Amino acid sequence: MSSDPAAKRPFGRRPGKSETRAAILAAAERRFAEAGYAGASLRAIARDAAVDPALISHFFGSKAGLFVAAVKWPIAPEETVAEVMAGGPEEAGRRLARVFLRHWGPTQTRGPILALFNAATADPEVAALRGEFLRDRLLLPILDALDADRRALRAGLISAQLNGLGMNRYVTGFIGPDQADDEEIIDAVAPVLQHYLAGPLS
Amino acid sequence: MSSDPAAKRPFGRRPGKSETRAAILAAAERRFAEAGYAGASLRAIARDAAVDPALISHFFGSKAGLFVAAVKWPIAPEETVAEVMAGGPEEAGRRLARVFLRHWGPTQTRGPILALFNAATADPEVAALRGEFLRDRLLLPILDALDADRRALRAGLISAQLNGLGMNRYVTGFIGPDQADDEEIIDAVAPVLQHYLAGPLS
Repeated sequence: MSSDPAAKRPFGRRPGKSETRAAILAAAERRFAEAGYAGASLRAIARDAAVDPALISHFFGSKAGLFVAAVKWPIAPEETVAEVMAGGPEEAGRRLARVFLRHWGPTQTRGPILALFNAATADPEVAALRGEFLRDRLLLPILDALDADRRALRAGLISAQLNGLGMNRYVTGFIGPDQADDEEIIDAVAPVLQHYLAGPLS
Repeated sequence: MSSDPAAKRPFGRRPGKSETRAAILAAAERRFAEAGYAGASLRAIARDAAVDPALISHFFGSKAGLFVAAVKWPIAPEETVAEVMAGGPEEAGRRLARVFLRHWGPTQTRGPILALFNAATADPEVAALRGEFLRDRLLLPILDALDADRRALRAGLISAQLNGLGMNRYVTGFIGPDQADDEEIIDAVAPVLQHYLAGPLS
């Protein structure tokens, strides 16, 4: 870095931390949408945002961290936890199945979910960050509210079931609309989620 | 093709169909093991096997078809179906869970399973071929033996559960050995598989 970036903005104030972060996120969102996770380069994102590439590491840690921050995650975890718990513990599994299909189903929310899903298969660090988000912000709070034992195991079993379901329903097509509509999927999967949420594991 | 390959082997007999196929498979196995699914080229495999690349398409249809044929699939489907059914339908889910962990667990059988799993995430055609193999050779015969209704849906739900479990136990580590040993996983998953195999779906 031979030049001070502020020198290029003689009439503007020096951009603040949150503006720099927002500029990086906006550039990342465009580049990832255009080129996908593997195809977008941190160098190009830094250039678009007019920042030094080292600032990306500073703010987001890694490409995986930037990606997960840039994706418009369509699930509000607190509201989702409240929705799954509303109406008592007996039907929590059914409500979780319903919330899951409602987010994966429509194209506009499925886009970012699938982008994260696909990037997670390409980069284990994305898989870890995505899995931790789902576990820590969504599944463990639900299991806490249910006062469940072995919460980490239960969260792992639930995410296994939901990821596999998302894959077979929306990617491979092995559980396509010709096999079952959403209500039939909810009927089939609700007792399984209920078992993992609140049933005896042994 | 300007030259007759037989002309290069004036003292040998013309290689037969099954020899050519075997030579392609042997070359594919080496190249895929060295370079992975994406990294291995059909051109290099054809060169190693001393065949015209068009013969690969002729025998295997595509790179995905060649890969699935070359992987040493560690599951003998007929024996596995018999094992899952032995002892009656009530414990079929438990035996399926046990067979699954016995194949994914040991390093020597997990290798090819993971290779297929990873290639399936890189190429939807591999995912389709792999899924069809599991469905048609393993899950549908079990469901036939159980005289189940809605077999394609049940097979899709079971493969969703098992793929997600394999992912979280052996790839992401969200259900690692610190969470549960194999017997605990079997206890937790057996009733779910039993539900998908033989329970009421609605």
